[in-house]
Amino acid sequence: MLGELEQVRPADIEKRSFEMITEELGGRKFPPETEPIIKRCIHTSADFDYADNLVFSDNAVERALQALKNGASIVTDTQMAKAGINKKRLSQYGGEVLCFMSDEDVAQAAAENGTTRAAASMDKAAELYRKRQAEGSGDGGLIFAIGNAPTALVRLYELVREGGVKPELIIGVPVGFVNVVQAKELILELSDTPYIVARGRKGGSNIAACICNALLYML
Amino acid sequence: MLGELEQVRPADIEKRSFEMITEELGGRKFPPETEPIIKRCIHTSADFDYADNLVFSDNAVERALQALKNGASIVTDTQMAKAGINKKRLSQYGGEVLCFMSDEDVAQAAAENGTTRAAASMDKAAELYRKRQAEGSGDGGLIFAIGNAPTALVRLYELVREGGVKPELIIGVPVGFVNVVQAKELILELSDTPYIVARGRKGGSNIAACICNALLYML
Repeated sequence: MLGELEQVRPADIEKRSFEMITEELGGRKFPPETEPIIKRCIHTSADFDYADNLVFSDNAVERALQALKNGASIVTDTQMAKAGINKKRLSQYGGEVLCFMSDEDVAQAAAENGTTRAAASMDKAAELYRKRQAEGSGDGGLIFAIGNAPTALVRLYELVREGGVKPELIIGVPVGFVNVVQAKELILELSDTPYIVARGRKGGSNIAACICNALLYML
Repeated sequence: MLGELEQVRPADIEKRSFEMITEELGGRKFPPETEPIIKRCIHTSADFDYADNLVFSDNAVERALQALKNGASIVTDTQMAKAGINKKRLSQYGGEVLCFMSDEDVAQAAAENGTTRAAASMDKAAELYRKRQAEGSGDGGLIFAIGNAPTALVRLYELVREGGVKPELIIGVPVGFVNVVQAKELILELSDTPYIVARGRKGGSNIAACICNALLYML
């Protein structure tokens, strides 16, 4: 019945949603800088598991906000996440969203190396990083937002360990079954790299995009 | 530890994921035509709630597959869902993905009518439908995949009731808090319109895209 709809003005829908989330979380407290991110993940998924499964490294949010202010770009592993990130807001600080998944050279490298395109796309991102470093144009560095492929996260872990790339932040929220849990645990081992990880199986390109947007809306 | 990763060839990751889902569902049985859709939603979200919350109207899958074969196009309410739908596969049957959310005329209509862009984008889709009908170019009709905005779903319900559009299928999986549950219940009231609805608060543009893709992969 149409009569059962709550009357909320279009401009107030998001505000009302966050109020409902806050109510249902009861008196639960989070570190203040993580709260907008946790609530936006719940808003995006209607899944309160995100109140428990998100792990933030020390000062991850503070460092990520600084990186965005410095013009960091975001590398992601799906066109869906790229579509969902607020690119207009990001560009105000000088950043852009990069996704190499559909690139011909990435498909070729994956086939040659018997790996996934997602993993190969991390190599391409690391190459870009090193090229920019060599040119002295850090360009604010790179934030990695991985919402789909655990193989991307594993390759990223290896690259960080090898010194092949130094991410400003790793958003590690791939979703699924094969090696998803393990890939996220690898990221939690990194000591010098800021991360936001959704522990367990859950996540997704929508969650990856929503964490990026939560950060952008905090600026 | 890298040593804890399961060794699975890139080409086998999806197959292995579906095996894990089947195992965890135990001996649970679903109507055969709904099973690939339910399992793909679980695969996309790592959320087994989709084993319980998906509601299919009678012959919804059969009718949707026929519509896709006839060249139906898919109208969606987010650029993210558009990005996630397998457009190459869809185009093999003559369909395309349409999203009017970023259109200037939609923004204007929403502002004038005090409604959301999502609702206004449904009016634009209905106009397109009527224009094609008048021209005698049914073009396979329209499938609506709503993964974000309950206001889109409510407007679509009104349009169907008014005779303003006759969808081949409504995928009603908006996610969230304000009027999401109610909007989905409205769709369940429609008697002549095929639907696939994720009852409750859960859903999302990823789920909308994944249901479209599950149907395309069944062809």
